[in-house]
Amino acid sequence: MQYNAITFVKRPTAEITPDIFERVTLQTPELKDDEFLVKQTHMSLDPAMRTWMMDNEESYIPPVAIGEVMRAYGVGEVVESKNPAFPVGARVVGITGWAEYVLGGADMQIVPQDVPVEALLCALHVPGLTAYVGLFEVLRPKAGETLVVSGAAGSVGSLVGQMAKAEGLRVVGVAGSDEKCRWLVDELGFDAAINYRSANLAEQLAEATPNGIDCYFENTGGPIQQLVYSRMNRFGRICVCGMISDYNRETPLPGPNWMDINLKALRVEGFVIVDHYDKAPKAVETITGYLQKGQLKYRAHVLEGLDSAIDGINLLFNGENQGKLLVKF
Amino acid sequence: MQYNAITFVKRPTAEITPDIFERVTLQTPELKDDEFLVKQTHMSLDPAMRTWMMDNEESYIPPVAIGEVMRAYGVGEVVESKNPAFPVGARVVGITGWAEYVLGGADMQIVPQDVPVEALLCALHVPGLTAYVGLFEVLRPKAGETLVVSGAAGSVGSLVGQMAKAEGLRVVGVAGSDEKCRWLVDELGFDAAINYRSANLAEQLAEATPNGIDCYFENTGGPIQQLVYSRMNRFGRICVCGMISDYNRETPLPGPNWMDINLKALRVEGFVIVDHYDKAPKAVETITGYLQKGQLKYRAHVLEGLDSAIDGINLLFNGENQGKLLVKF
Repeated sequence: MQYNAITFVKRPTAEITPDIFERVTLQTPELKDDEFLVKQTHMSLDPAMRTWMMDNEESYIPPVAIGEVMRAYGVGEVVESKNPAFPVGARVVGITGWAEYVLGGADMQIVPQDVPVEALLCALHVPGLTAYVGLFEVLRPKAGETLVVSGAAGSVGSLVGQMAKAEGLRVVGVAGSDEKCRWLVDELGFDAAINYRSANLAEQLAEATPNGIDCYFENTGGPIQQLVYSRMNRFGRICVCGMISDYNRETPLPGPNWMDINLKALRVEGFVIVDHYDKAPKAVETITGYLQKGQLKYRAHVLEGLDSAIDGINLLFNGENQGKLLVKF
Repeated sequence: MQYNAITFVKRPTAEITPDIFERVTLQTPELKDDEFLVKQTHMSLDPAMRTWMMDNEESYIPPVAIGEVMRAYGVGEVVESKNPAFPVGARVVGITGWAEYVLGGADMQIVPQDVPVEALLCALHVPGLTAYVGLFEVLRPKAGETLVVSGAAGSVGSLVGQMAKAEGLRVVGVAGSDEKCRWLVDELGFDAAINYRSANLAEQLAEATPNGIDCYFENTGGPIQQLVYSRMNRFGRICVCGMISDYNRETPLPGPNWMDINLKALRVEGFVIVDHYDKAPKAVETITGYLQKGQLKYRAHVLEGLDSAIDGINLLFNGENQGKLLVKF
C-alpha cells in the first residue's frame, strides 16, 4: 500500500521554512512478528518538534536524522497486526510521524474508542501528563500560593493554570494576544492574564501578583522571564518546561543572574516528559477527575491533511494558534 | 566598661571602602535578666557580609542598618551573665558583631573549650554547616559522579571538595591562583584544579571533566559559570551557595539561558544557611568524623585586631586570602 509522508531534509538555523521538509510517497512494509501497522487519524504539532530538529546529541532524545520521516505524536487505528497485544481495530496513541501510516512502536498505548480525540490529544496524554508532572512533581504548589504560567493559552499552559486553580492557587497567565488573555480569564477562570506584547509589563505583573510569586511554570522564555524572576518569593519554585521564544534563535538570550536563587533559596528545575511516562496512569486518573468536575477546558485548533503541517507548525512560534494544534488526516 | 566597635555608616554601591565604616567607643550595658555579655576572641570575615550591606528588604536576613555595629559571626567567652544557661567562663559561637564585647543572642551555642578555635570557625560551624547542607541536602551526590566547585580554595569550597572526595566523587576545583590550585590538588587531594585567571578555560575544564559534570557547587559566578553549565550532564544539579564575583557589581551579570535546564532536566537550587540550623548537630557529627579520619584539612588566614577587618574584608573579594579569613582580638 502506498502512503504519503513528510521527511526532514535540512536542519533549520532559525525559523522553520518549508524547504526543510520533503513530501514523499512510501510503501507500507511487510510486517514481521510482533509488528503492527497504524493508520494515523490525528497528529499533534508541538513546540518540542523544534528541539528535535536541533543537532544536539546531548538532548534527552536523539535529534531527527536527516532523511527520516519527521517525528510526531498522534492517534491512529491498528489496520494490520502480527502483535496480539495490538489487534486490528485497536485505537492507539504514541510516537507516530508525519505520515499517513506508521509502524507501531514500543511506546504506544491502547486507548478507549469512546474518548473524543480532542480529549486524548489536548488533555489526557502528552499535554496533560506534561502539565501534571510540571505542576505536581516539580512545582509542588500549596493552596493560597501565587502561580504564574507563560505560554498560558498553549496546550500545556492552559491546563497548568486550570489545575492550579482547582488546587486553590492564585493563577496569572502570560499570553500573546488580548483575545487569548480574555479566554484565560473569562472562560478558564484565571485570576489575571497579561499580554506580553503590551506595554508596562512590570507594572501589570506587580498588580497581578500583589503577594509576589511562589511558582513559575516557564514555557516561553523571553522578557517576561526576568520580570517574573524578580518577583519570586523566598523558597519559590520555577519549572522550566519549555523555552519556545528561544528555539528559533541561533544564540539563545541570556537568563537571569543567579544571586536571587541563592539569597531567596529558589529552585529552578527542568524536566522532559519522556522521563516521566511512569506517572501517566496517575495523571490520566487525576485529569479525568478534573474533566468530570468541569474544571478543565481545552480548545483544539485543527488543520486538515498531512501537508497542512508544513506551514501550520509555525503557528506555534508566531503564536497564532488558538488552542492545541492538531492535524486531522 | 568601654570597648571598641565598628559601625556601618554607608551602603557601598560597588567595592567595600573604609569610609563605609566608623570606629566607635561604646559602653557595655547593665545586664537585664537572661542577658549575658560575651568577650569576643575571634571573628569570622565572610563573603556573605557584602550581601548584608545591600539595601534588599527581601533577602533572607534584614540588611545591617545604617549606624548599627557591623554584623559578624564569631567565638567568645561569657564574662558576665544573668542567664544560667550561659554561665561565666562558657565558650560560645554565634552572631556577634565587629566589636570587642557583644550581648549574647538567642542563636548562640556553647562549644567545648578544647576544640581549637580554627576548627570551630574553619570546619565545624558556619563554613562546615554550609558545605554539608549544600552538598548533602541540595546536590545529593552519588559516588562516581563528577563535582565542580568554584571558590574552591575558600572556606566553604575547600570543605565541599574534600567531603565530595571522601564520598567517592571526582572533584575539580576552580580557584584564583596557581598556588591555590596546587594546594587543592597536592594538599587536599582534589583530582584537578583550574585557575580561572588562566587562558583556555573551556579546554581545561573539558580535560578535567571527561565524563561531563553532574554536580556544580557555585560560590562565585563569573565566566566559569557558563562554561560549567554547558558541560552539565542530564539530571545534573547545581547548588547556588554564593555569587561573590557579583556582590560588588551595581548590575549583576546575566546568567545562562534556561534551555539546558529544560532539555537536560537540570536542577538549580539555592539556599542560605539560616534556614538550616536544625541540621547543625548532624553536620557537626559528620564533620567530626571526617576530621578524625584525616579527610578534612583547612587553613586559617588570621588578621590581628578589630581594625584589621576594615581593609581585611577585601581580601575575600580580590581573592588574596589564603584560607578562612579570621580576626583575632
